Parts: sequence; C-alpha cells; structure tokens
Amino acid sequence: METRSTIDRRPAQELRSRCRSGEFKQPTTGFAPGFAQANLLVLPKEDAFDFLLFCQRNPKPCPLLEVTEPGDPEPKQIAPAADLRTDLPLYRIYRNGELVGEVQDVRELWRPDLVAFLLGCSFTFETALLRAGLGVRQLEETLPDGSAKNVPMYRTNIPCRTAGKFSGPLVVSMRPYTPADAVKAATVTARYPSVHGAPIQIGDPSSIGIQHLDRPDWGNAVTIRPGEVPVFWACGVTPQAAVIQSKPSFAIAHAPGHMFVTDVTDEELAV
Amino acid sequence: METRSTIDRRPAQELRSRCRSGEFKQPTTGFAPGFAQANLLVLPKEDAFDFLLFCQRNPKPCPLLEVTEPGDPEPKQIAPAADLRTDLPLYRIYRNGELVGEVQDVRELWRPDLVAFLLGCSFTFETALLRAGLGVRQLEETLPDGSAKNVPMYRTNIPCRTAGKFSGPLVVSMRPYTPADAVKAATVTARYPSVHGAPIQIGDPSSIGIQHLDRPDWGNAVTIRPGEVPVFWACGVTPQAAVIQSKPSFAIAHAPGHMFVTDVTDEELAV
Repeated sequence: METRSTIDRRPAQELRSRCRSGEFKQPTTGFAPGFAQANLLVLPKEDAFDFLLFCQRNPKPCPLLEVTEPGDPEPKQIAPAADLRTDLPLYRIYRNGELVGEVQDVRELWRPDLVAFLLGCSFTFETALLRAGLGVRQLEETLPDGSAKNVPMYRTNIPCRTAGKFSGPLVVSMRPYTPADAVKAATVTARYPSVHGAPIQIGDPSSIGIQHLDRPDWGNAVTIRPGEVPVFWACGVTPQAAVIQSKPSFAIAHAPGHMFVTDVTDEELAV
Repeated sequence: METRSTIDRRPAQELRSRCRSGEFKQPTTGFAPGFAQANLLVLPKEDAFDFLLFCQRNPKPCPLLEVTEPGDPEPKQIAPAADLRTDLPLYRIYRNGELVGEVQDVRELWRPDLVAFLLGCSFTFETALLRAGLGVRQLEETLPDGSAKNVPMYRTNIPCRTAGKFSGPLVVSMRPYTPADAVKAATVTARYPSVHGAPIQIGDPSSIGIQHLDRPDWGNAVTIRPGEVPVFWACGVTPQAAVIQSKPSFAIAHAPGHMFVTDVTDEELAV
C-alpha cells in the first residue's frame, strides 16, 4: 500500500476536496473509480483495544486498512495529507450506542484521545466488477427524485466474534446477479480480501436472517430481475451495528455508503 | 481456522502435553509436522493496544493468529483447552526490555491483566517445503553435542512501522537453497501468508544489514553449500526485538525456536 509516483491520484484527492468544501454529500458508490474506499469508525482510546481486537477476530467484515495514532486525524499510509474530520461526505455521531446526529464535518467533535479505524469497503471492487462486464445494480438505478442510489445493506442473524465490550451481527451488502454471473462476481471479488473479498453467501437470504430484500436496514432497495439471485458480501457497516449493540460512550462513523476515498488503488490492494 | 472433527489433532495435543510435563524443552522445528506453530508475546493490558497496532502495521513479521482476552491463558480459537502458561517448551521473561530469565513454566508470573498474542511461525510451512522436495537445512544438521539445531535468525536494518511505544527492526529466519529451489521455496511459502508467507529477500544479506551469516542473532548457524543462496523470511522474533528496543515494563515470550504448537493445520491456514 505504499503510494507510487507513477499513479495519478488526483481523482481521489479531488473527491476528498469536494467533501471538505461541503459540496459533495452523497453516497460515493461509482465515484473516483479505481481508488479504494474505506469505512470509518472513530472511538476513544479507552475502547480502541477492544475494537482493534474485534477487527482482528472478524477480518471478513472488518478488514483494517489503517489505524491512526490517538488524536491524529491524518491517515498517513493510505491518504497522506487527508483530514478524516472533513474529508468524508457525511458522518454519523453515536453516543452510548444511539445515533444522535448526521453532520458533514466533525472538527468540533474531535478530541486528542480519538483513534480512527479505516476498513476496506466493497465499493472498491465495483470497478473490477464493471471491468469484468458485470453490472452493479445500484449504479444503474436512481431514486424517484432522480438522485443516486446507495447499495442495499442488511443486518444478518450471523453473530460476529465478540472482543471485549464489542459484539454484534454481521452486516452485508447485496448486489443481484444471474447464477452464472454470481460465480463470476465471486471469482472477481475474491482477489480483494482487504475490501471484504468473496461473497459470504449466494441466493438464500432467509438462511442468514434476511426476510425482506425490499426493505434494507441501510441504503436503498434495488430491483432483482427474474432469474437473478441476491449475492451478499460482508459489509463495513458491521462496526456500526456493533456500536449500536455495545454502546461505547462516543463514536463517529461514516454515514452508510458515504465513504472515505483513499489514495490507494484497487489493484494495489489485490492479491 | 474453525477446528473440524475429521482431522486427528492428537499429535499437536501430545506435544503440548509433553511441554506441560516439562519433558519437552527443545526447539519445535520438525515436530508435530502439519500443525501450525506460533510465536508468543504476552504483555500487560496497558501495552496491548500499541502492540496490536504494531502487528496490524507490520503483518509480514507479525501475522496474528489469535489474541486472548486479558487474564485468559487459553487460546480458544487455535488450541482450545491448551494453557499458554505451561504448553510451550521454553519461555523468556523481559522486564523493561531486558531479558531477565528463561523458564519452562510461567504460571507463577501470570496476572489478570496479561494479554497473549499468538503470531504465525515459519516452522509451519516447513512441512510444505519438505513435501515439495525442498530440504530444510537446520533439520538436516545437528550441534556438536548431537542435539537438534534451531533455525538461524538475524536482526536486519529494515525498520518496522512504529505503533505507539513499539518500534524495532525486522528479524528474519534463513534457509539456504540453490537459486532454482529458492524460487520454488518462494512459491510454496507464498500460500501461507498467516505464517510469514513468501520470503522478504533472496541472496543479498548485506543489503538488509546482515554481515555474518555464520553468527546469527538467535538460533544456530547452518551450512551454506557452494551454489546456494540464503533465503530470508520475516520472523516472529521481531516482537522480541521490539520489546528490547521499546522497553515495556513486563513481557513474556517464547524462547526463539521454542514455539507454541496449535491445533490448526498448515492447510487450514493456506490460501
């Protein structure tokens, strides 16, 4: 993940700059294609060991790209000179596990004891899916008001491994494919383990506790055409489900789908 | 890494039992073939976040297999019912970064605030090297008194990424091969990223700060035959070099080469 000078990283830097100015505030799916996107969770130092252990024990939903030193808002490895307090389109604030606000800037909430965790996001491999000739449904559809759709995300009945105070269910994102394309999508995404990798399941939502595909817990429902099956990937909203269940005193997260765009390319993360 | 009932895990359990009784106290290279071996570092909870972050930032020398809850000496994922206080052949005790003792049992030193880190060890892939028709030199040679050799390990001039209070040089293990076999050894071991994976370097010790192959910093020198080159793998003694440099108040580690043998097979860890 060292940055190399031969790659033009301006598309990622420009999108972050548009977030910082407040101009860009929508889901990042489809933007800055080819650059890895990251989930954010910020916790006080007192909770950081337990959460880092939660990530170590649950690498599929929580693949760590970077963890900052306490108080430092700059992710020096994956986006040098970026500022995690301003460079995401939208943030969610949690107190004692309750969502208490959604804001575009968290500079006023920043504290010297805060540690930021950046986890790989499946939006990263959507470029590879498109290159492989596979559509990404939420990119093909719009909401009734014409604005872009976010990927649908669902709470499952699969428990994560507990670590200290943190426990919670696995959250998944869903993209529909024909059964043949689902196999191809599994193969393509398996190359990207640090952004959730291969699907966790294909085709049987009820067996993982999802009863209504048309009512996602986060994001927007998408059309599943006749002959298509839902394909589920582990999702970086899993930490927010753990925050809701485990109630740390304070947490800052990205608003689901509103990711941090890094300077690292998808191919730099591929195996 | 879930244990599966079709695999007979008794060879691992029996070796641990021989460690517990005090009967087995030599290096574990070549023993319980096919079972993953692990490096151990035990630290007080107050240092555990910094060290967990050190592992996250240095995954090649510090690939985490399991981290225990504070005070719990049982590695529930990779060796249920084992006891990390007795089940290694030999331990090293550090106070303020100084090696103060070598013991076969650490029950009297155990505390409710201690966290154990288990990191993959390259002894794990030696079985795969042997299956691929590649010799492992330290297994072929003995010391003048007839006892088994340990793998040679060297401090390099490559700094690890710092995390909180922890910093230190990368430590490597070395096995000599002909240039053609070195490529084969790289391919074979690349399948095992959680036990250090592919070599970090082949054939140029001085460029990584190693001046005398016949004087390893840990373990025993082995013969390098005419036409052979040294092949270097990241080594799980790296945490002990970080302890020596970073001086946490207290640490327990395995004696280099005297590993914890887990219930997990090398193939369960392979990618």
